[in-house]
Amino acid sequence: MTEPLKIALAGLGTVGTGVVRLIETNAALIARRARRPIQITAVSARDRSKDRGVDLSRYAWADDPAELAARDDVDVVVEMVGGSDGPALALARTAIAGGKSLVTANKAMIAHHGLELADAAEKTGVALKFEAAVAGGIPVINGMIDGAAANAIDRVYGILNGTCNYILSSMEDTGADFADVLAEAQRLGYAEADPTFDVEGIDAAHKLSILGAIAFGAKLDFAGVETVGISQVKAADIEQAHALGYVVRLLGMSELERDPAGDRLFQRVRPYLVPVDHPLANVDGPTNAVVAEGNFMGRLLFQGAGAGDGPTASAVVADIIDIARGEKGPAFSMPVAELQPFGKASSGHRVSRSYIRFIVPDRPGVLADITAAMRDAGVSIESVIQRGDPDQDGEVILAIVTHEGPEACVTEAMRILDGSDSLTAAPLVMQIIGE
Amino acid sequence: MTEPLKIALAGLGTVGTGVVRLIETNAALIARRARRPIQITAVSARDRSKDRGVDLSRYAWADDPAELAARDDVDVVVEMVGGSDGPALALARTAIAGGKSLVTANKAMIAHHGLELADAAEKTGVALKFEAAVAGGIPVINGMIDGAAANAIDRVYGILNGTCNYILSSMEDTGADFADVLAEAQRLGYAEADPTFDVEGIDAAHKLSILGAIAFGAKLDFAGVETVGISQVKAADIEQAHALGYVVRLLGMSELERDPAGDRLFQRVRPYLVPVDHPLANVDGPTNAVVAEGNFMGRLLFQGAGAGDGPTASAVVADIIDIARGEKGPAFSMPVAELQPFGKASSGHRVSRSYIRFIVPDRPGVLADITAAMRDAGVSIESVIQRGDPDQDGEVILAIVTHEGPEACVTEAMRILDGSDSLTAAPLVMQIIGE
Repeated sequence: MTEPLKIALAGLGTVGTGVVRLIETNAALIARRARRPIQITAVSARDRSKDRGVDLSRYAWADDPAELAARDDVDVVVEMVGGSDGPALALARTAIAGGKSLVTANKAMIAHHGLELADAAEKTGVALKFEAAVAGGIPVINGMIDGAAANAIDRVYGILNGTCNYILSSMEDTGADFADVLAEAQRLGYAEADPTFDVEGIDAAHKLSILGAIAFGAKLDFAGVETVGISQVKAADIEQAHALGYVVRLLGMSELERDPAGDRLFQRVRPYLVPVDHPLANVDGPTNAVVAEGNFMGRLLFQGAGAGDGPTASAVVADIIDIARGEKGPAFSMPVAELQPFGKASSGHRVSRSYIRFIVPDRPGVLADITAAMRDAGVSIESVIQRGDPDQDGEVILAIVTHEGPEACVTEAMRILDGSDSLTAAPLVMQIIGE
Repeated sequence: MTEPLKIALAGLGTVGTGVVRLIETNAALIARRARRPIQITAVSARDRSKDRGVDLSRYAWADDPAELAARDDVDVVVEMVGGSDGPALALARTAIAGGKSLVTANKAMIAHHGLELADAAEKTGVALKFEAAVAGGIPVINGMIDGAAANAIDRVYGILNGTCNYILSSMEDTGADFADVLAEAQRLGYAEADPTFDVEGIDAAHKLSILGAIAFGAKLDFAGVETVGISQVKAADIEQAHALGYVVRLLGMSELERDPAGDRLFQRVRPYLVPVDHPLANVDGPTNAVVAEGNFMGRLLFQGAGAGDGPTASAVVADIIDIARGEKGPAFSMPVAELQPFGKASSGHRVSRSYIRFIVPDRPGVLADITAAMRDAGVSIESVIQRGDPDQDGEVILAIVTHEGPEACVTEAMRILDGSDSLTAAPLVMQIIGE
């Protein structure tokens, strides 16, 4: 057996502790699979005295994570501090500059600084790996870099945020409204005290931008993701969707739009209507799933646990095993200099069927106003569902499904209706994905 | 850019031709991802004059595939001749012995001779890769070796044969019987003229034995797979299953049974009842899907095209790209000498709920005979469905679902009933998998 691979862990929250547990529990198996033992030499966290349920006395302790990067007995630094900047980024930069490989689960840091870090890693000849940053325990980055490597990828999309999927599928099961289910999710630990990053789609956008860079060989462009969260989705929307044969899912969708004048990258996170017989419609609770479509492999689906200490630790240690095996390829599948700066594709010209939900006063003429706006904007209506009875505020839910058409027309119809007294709240638009 | 990786293709059927098309179509992309070009230098097939829709004039031609292994301008031989022995095996042995890496889609050859070939590849320091041998275009071998590497795997199971899945899901959709759907599948090219390997579960057993060896670090044991095909499944079974909330799927199931006296490997291919809300229940047509359960990652699902020239070529070329990148790890994730020769676990002690379908004469006393046998064998009955009307032969379908219990008791009940004049045909037993 060759020399052990020596690693240092920065951050000992649930994921960091999970990594310690995994490496200890599966040590013998990992050594056989990695062809050398993996040995933790040093750890760092804020509070040394906290009981984490694992014995840390064998490992050197550093109060300052930056010390880990300076140690001679460390080959790989595992960053689990979190946050897109601050100490996590400082540690990542120092470790890579000092010739240590870096493994991280930090999607925010990679979405914002991944290209800089990958470039630095290429210069110092170390590995930068972040399997756990996208879809938790699902080895989807490995799947794209290795398994799907022979394909030009046309489209990659999926359920990238377990909190939102838990909330939407719970709303589906219980008929409860967003706020109630969110409160329950917070109580159960599926949602953070400040849920903004999750429910507004920012976390999914981080992951989508990373996935797109790898899938398309694109310069990572987090700012180019159009992002809408799920906080506007009502129980009534889920009910209408169900009646129409759909479920509501927050999807991240990334597609390379081919164009002789220059390919463009379309990236969007938002709630979609998904047909009940689509594989993503059956993904419930905090599960994640990613679909990749390639020009030879066809459609590939990866599904599994999107979060949690065990699954995330599984992905972190898979990266460490890769490094132990000497697999140090470029972080985004090709060198940063070869990643292409595709222009941003906007959604306007995209052809979709859309679901549009209005909340309207219960009086004559409302439907005429709305349908006139749709007509003037060139939106063709496929079906209309209006529930019979107004609620206690005298308001009625009106749902319209459009025929396929440019999304810009729907946007224009919404602009025409903006401020109209036929609407008592901002309408919600959700695109419908095909089979 | 470094030196090209030079490959030779033996066998130019649909998959071989697909590999040529893929390497030509995606050449630039592959060179960027593999960090060097992949170049076909020589090809071999039976008939040089046949029009395959691709231009082969640039490549050296060999009438005898064995010549490919002797060429100086070949780094990797891609075997797509087929057959577990004969020319395919001869080529594989010669290529590896001569210091060429070998890539193959040949599950039969790997199931029978994989350990010998892997051992030979270790000795000459070349790669042996066979991603396309299991689940076609789904990178499940890569997923197990890389993505799930940190986990002790408890169980791996899935839909491994697209022909059977096409037949079963068509029977489900149309209500037609096995023979009719098989004939239709043959007409459409989803089933071979001689469908035995597929419909009797042998093809799935080849794949399962390969998957189990990798997942559990087990000595590959194709002979240890208990195999039952789908030819006994009737339209009536699918209908009864549906009424009970299940679909019928041919599953390969491999599980490491932990035991202080020595772990044992359970391997079985047979039709199962799958709950309609299980991810595998939604896998229709020729699609394949594999579930792996690990001690940290939880349940992981891979789903995609299980056959076809494009998906299979995608998997073959993914292996070639790995070799171009210098990734030459052991074929079964660890060296052959470290694979463990687990004893064979039989099904008798396994605790399952079972579906048992009887075809019985329409006369008094039949149900009493059957239920007495079940009682005497210690089988506890959960539900009984008897369809009202006998068919034109005066026969009735009787379906029983048992409570959880040892499968040996069900086998014993079948033994008691063997030859009974209360049965007009051999009964069919299908286990029910849990959520």
